[in-house]
Amino acid sequence: MKEDLILKNLRNIPDYPKPGIQFQDVSTLFKNAECLQEIKNEIIELYRDKGITKVVGLESRGFVLGAIVAAELGAGFVMCRKPGKLPGMTRKASYQKEYGYDNIEIHDDAITSDDVVLIHDDLLATGGSMRAAHNLVESFHPKKIYVNFIMELCMEGLKGGEALADLDITTLIKIHR
Amino acid sequence: MKEDLILKNLRNIPDYPKPGIQFQDVSTLFKNAECLQEIKNEIIELYRDKGITKVVGLESRGFVLGAIVAAELGAGFVMCRKPGKLPGMTRKASYQKEYGYDNIEIHDDAITSDDVVLIHDDLLATGGSMRAAHNLVESFHPKKIYVNFIMELCMEGLKGGEALADLDITTLIKIHR
Repeated sequence: MKEDLILKNLRNIPDYPKPGIQFQDVSTLFKNAECLQEIKNEIIELYRDKGITKVVGLESRGFVLGAIVAAELGAGFVMCRKPGKLPGMTRKASYQKEYGYDNIEIHDDAITSDDVVLIHDDLLATGGSMRAAHNLVESFHPKKIYVNFIMELCMEGLKGGEALADLDITTLIKIHR
Repeated sequence: MKEDLILKNLRNIPDYPKPGIQFQDVSTLFKNAECLQEIKNEIIELYRDKGITKVVGLESRGFVLGAIVAAELGAGFVMCRKPGKLPGMTRKASYQKEYGYDNIEIHDDAITSDDVVLIHDDLLATGGSMRAAHNLVESFHPKKIYVNFIMELCMEGLKGGEALADLDITTLIKIHR
């Protein structure tokens, strides 16, 4: 793992979205072609032999690597979206965010019991949105559910790793700044 | 072009988001692994030899194929987002939507004058958001700007193709329903 490449290109934005928060801006990873390939390769290496048939990406940053990994694995890509964004029948879940509450939805026909699902998001903080997404995906009774993040934030007060410890989860790098 | 494959898997949702609108739901294309590969292959075929260094995707559905195409071409991926979503310094543009007004933003350091840019979105309706995105990208003075959509809606009152006729644009399929 070229952890240095990722850390060097990850932008830290202090006091965003509110004072005291060190925001990790993954947009600087995505815009760097070498970083994007490296992250793709690392995730593919982890899931190449798992028989993944659907990748679920969490809106919106989780769409980026989620879609790339789906295409690379020959799987379908499913959008897990904010409320009111999906036009068809949906299943919904709500969760507590770092800075409030939110809801997410998945189309009611997006996953079947024959699927092997990988749920992807860019960043693990409290784990709230991923827990909600996992609950949603679980309601379809797929054969297996895997979970992947590009990075986990390991700052004081953030216990996302612990909160999701019962899931089959991988994270490429841990951020301690 | 396997147009039948796309049309067969594209879901039409009548009267969404308001009466009289036939909403074309691309989520059913993305979730179908064969469709996703076909769309990817068609776009790659068009831009393989163009020297693309950055792909700009329009939030959120434009992130899906935008990111896939960026990774496949070995380019960086840049998010063109809704207001207030990008944490760093941004450039902004506003535009008239089919159902109101909206704004979009790109990070101020996302593109350079050395870049060859492909802007991607899933669906061309009025062309308003793509015109705004094109104006934003143009402000970085890249070497060249290409524009791609998966599909163009060719219904009465929608003249997106005409509105963007001065751009270097490709569209995989035209929808007349």
